[in-house]
Amino acid sequence: MSSKTSRKIDKSKLKECICKIRLVAFDFDGVLTDNMVYVHEDGTEAVRCYRGDGIGLRKLERLGIETVILSSELTPVVSTRSRKLGIRCVQSSGDKLDALRTIAEEQLGLSMEQVAFVGNDVNDLTCLKSVGLPMVVQDAHPDVIPYAKYKTRSQGGHGAVREICDMFEQMLLDQHTEGNHLDGQ
Amino acid sequence: MSSKTSRKIDKSKLKECICKIRLVAFDFDGVLTDNMVYVHEDGTEAVRCYRGDGIGLRKLERLGIETVILSSELTPVVSTRSRKLGIRCVQSSGDKLDALRTIAEEQLGLSMEQVAFVGNDVNDLTCLKSVGLPMVVQDAHPDVIPYAKYKTRSQGGHGAVREICDMFEQMLLDQHTEGNHLDGQ
Amino acid sequence: MSSKTSRKIDKSKLKECICKIRLVAFDFDGVLTDNMVYVHEDGTEAVRCYRGDGIGLRKLERLGIETVILSSELTPVVSTRSRKLGIRCVQSSGDKLDALRTIAEEQLGLSMEQVAFVGNDVNDLTCLKSVGLPMVVQDAHPDVIPYAKYKTRSQGGHGAVREICDMFEQMLLDQHTEGNHLDGQ
Amino acid sequence: MSSKTSRKIDKSKLKECICKIRLVAFDFDGVLTDNMVYVHEDGTEAVRCYRGDGIGLRKLERLGIETVILSSELTPVVSTRSRKLGIRCVQSSGDKLDALRTIAEEQLGLSMEQVAFVGNDVNDLTCLKSVGLPMVVQDAHPDVIPYAKYKTRSQGGHGAVREICDMFEQMLLDQHTEGNHLDGQ
Repeated sequence: MSSKTSRKIDKSKLKECICKIRLVAFDFDGVLTDNMVYVHEDGTEAVRCYRGDGIGLRKLERLGIETVILSSELTPVVSTRSRKLGIRCVQSSGDKLDALRTIAEEQLGLSMEQVAFVGNDVNDLTCLKSVGLPMVVQDAHPDVIPYAKYKTRSQGGHGAVREICDMFEQMLLDQHTEGNHLDGQ
Repeated sequence: MSSKTSRKIDKSKLKECICKIRLVAFDFDGVLTDNMVYVHEDGTEAVRCYRGDGIGLRKLERLGIETVILSSELTPVVSTRSRKLGIRCVQSSGDKLDALRTIAEEQLGLSMEQVAFVGNDVNDLTCLKSVGLPMVVQDAHPDVIPYAKYKTRSQGGHGAVREICDMFEQMLLDQHTEGNHLDGQ
Repeated sequence: MSSKTSRKIDKSKLKECICKIRLVAFDFDGVLTDNMVYVHEDGTEAVRCYRGDGIGLRKLERLGIETVILSSELTPVVSTRSRKLGIRCVQSSGDKLDALRTIAEEQLGLSMEQVAFVGNDVNDLTCLKSVGLPMVVQDAHPDVIPYAKYKTRSQGGHGAVREICDMFEQMLLDQHTEGNHLDGQ
Repeated sequence: MSSKTSRKIDKSKLKECICKIRLVAFDFDGVLTDNMVYVHEDGTEAVRCYRGDGIGLRKLERLGIETVILSSELTPVVSTRSRKLGIRCVQSSGDKLDALRTIAEEQLGLSMEQVAFVGNDVNDLTCLKSVGLPMVVQDAHPDVIPYAKYKTRSQGGHGAVREICDMFEQMLLDQHTEGNHLDGQ
C-alpha cells in the first residue's frame, strides 16, 4: 500500500520510524501558527503561536534531535519566533525541499530517511514526499493528508508541535526502557 | 424556482456556470477576513486573514481568471492585504455594484453573466443579484444566503476563498478532461 | 413571576416592550467585544469587534431610536470604536446607572421604561434592574442572566449587537404592517 | 488514594481546603491567557486576556485573600497586565516554586497548606505538588491534570480565573452562613 492511501501507520512502525529520526523540520504558517495572519494598517503583519510548543522543542533538544523551521514566507515574524524558541530557521522564496536537503544532507550529513517534516498545505508536498517521516497537522489541506504517515490530533498553532514532541519523547523513552529490559534479561 | 428560494444549484449547473466566469470579485470583510476588526488605542485597526487563500488565488490566476477585492470600508488594511496577495482592490464608499460594473464591463469588456461575486452581508445584495454566479460564505447573514447559487462550507477568513478557488480548479480541470475524452471519441 | 426567574418573555410581550423603547444603551466589553483584551508590551490594549454591528446600529438610527455605549473601563479603544460606529459613548469609572440616567432622563427626557440596556456581567446589574428592556448576550455571566427579558443567541462581539438591531427592525416593521392592516379594515 | 490519581475531590473536602487558603497564586500563560502569543514583525509580543477575570480578583481581595501572578516568561506583557488588574506579579527565569515559597513563607508568613496555585503545564508541577490546593485549567496539559485537586470548567484565558474566584466567594459565603446558623442554635 502506497503512502498516498495510508493516512497513518501502526504504532510499532511509527516507533521504528521515529527511532531513526535525527532532524525534525517544521513548516511555519499553519504548523507553528494557526495559519492566520493579522494585517495592520501600517502594512506590518503578526501571527499567533502556542506557548506550549517551546516546552516541546526543548524536549527534542534534550533527546539530541535537531530542529529547524522552514518557511517560504519572507516575513520578520518567522525569525522573531524562531529566535524566541531558540531554534534555527530558514526562509526562502524558492522550494522548501532545496533548503531542507541543504540542512539535512550537506550541513548535518543525514540521509532523508533520518528526517521528519511537519507540513499543512500543498507547498509542503515536495518535502513530505522526500522525508522518512512525513507528518501533517489535524487541519491540513485535504490534498496533503494522504502523503503523511502521522496526522496530529491538535490543530496547527494549537498544540500540534507540542503533541509531536511529546510523542517523540514517549516513543524514545519506551524504546529505551524496552532496551534496558532486554539488557537485563 | 427563483434564486431567492434555492440556496444551491446542482453540480452540473454549477459547473456550467463556472465555465463562463472570467472574473471573480471578493468582498473583503467577512470573506477575506473573519468579519472581525481589531481596534487599537491609537485608533488604528487590524484584521485577520487566512494564509491559505493566497495559494487559492494563484490557482485562479493560472486558470486565466481575473480577480478583484471590493470593499466599502475605507481602511488601509484592505490595500495592504491586496498588495500582499497580488490582486487588484477597489475601495469605495458608494455602492459596490457601480465599482464592479466599471471593472467588469468597462475595463474587462465582460458581461455580468461572466462575473462571480462572493459576499457575506446585506451591503453585498446589489452585487449578488447582478452577477452570473453569486456566492456567499458559510457564516453569511441569513438575509443574503437565499440570493446565492453557492454557499461555502468554510467560514469567511477561515478558508472560504481557498475553497472557492479549489472548486474552480477542480471543475475546470474536470471539464478539460471531459472535453479531451470527447475529442478522442 | 418576577423577572429574576424568567429568562425570556414571550414574543408579543417582547414586541410590546420594544415598541416603547427610544434609547438602546450597550455595555462595551463583552457586548460590542468578545470580552477579551489584547495586551501589548508597550502597555497599550486592543479589543476585537464585529464588523456587522455597524450595519445593525444604522438600522436603529433609521428607526429613530437613540443609541449609546456605556463603559466603566477608561480606555481609548472605547471612544475609537464608538467614533467609527458613529455612536455616542460615555466612559465613567463610577456606576453606569448614573451615566445612563443622565442621558436618558436629563438629556433625552425619557423615562427608564423607554430604555433598553444590553449587558454581560455583574457590573451591569444596576442598569439591567432599572430599564424597561434589560437584555444580555448569550455568554453573559450566570449571575446576570436571570435579570434579562431577552438573551441573544449570538455571543458578545460575535453578532449579539447586530442580532438585537435586526430584531428591533423586524418587530417594528411587523408592528407597522399590522397597524396598516388595522387601518385598512 | 494519592492526589496523583484523583482529579477532583468532593465538595465538602474542597470547601474545607478553600477555607484554609490565604494566598492564591496564578501562572500567567495559559491561566490568565489562552496560552497563545501574538508575534509582531518588530519582535514585540502580545497576549489575550479575559476582561471578566478582574471582577473575580477583586472578589478575592474583598474576602481578604492575597493574590499573585507567577511567570517564568520574562516579558513586559505580564507586568502590564498585572498592573491593570492591580495584583502583584513575580517574573523569574528560575523555578516558580522558589518564588512562591519566598512570597508565601517569608513575606506573608504562611505555610504552603494555606496556598492555592493555578497552573496549566509541566513547568507548574513543582508548585502544584507543594501547595495545599493545586488547581489546573480545563485545557491543561494531560501530564499535570492528575496533580490537581480542582480542574476548572472554563479554559485558560476564557474565564478560568473568574470561575475560581467565584467558587471561593460561594464556598466562603456558604461557610459563613452555616457558621451563623450554628451560632444561632
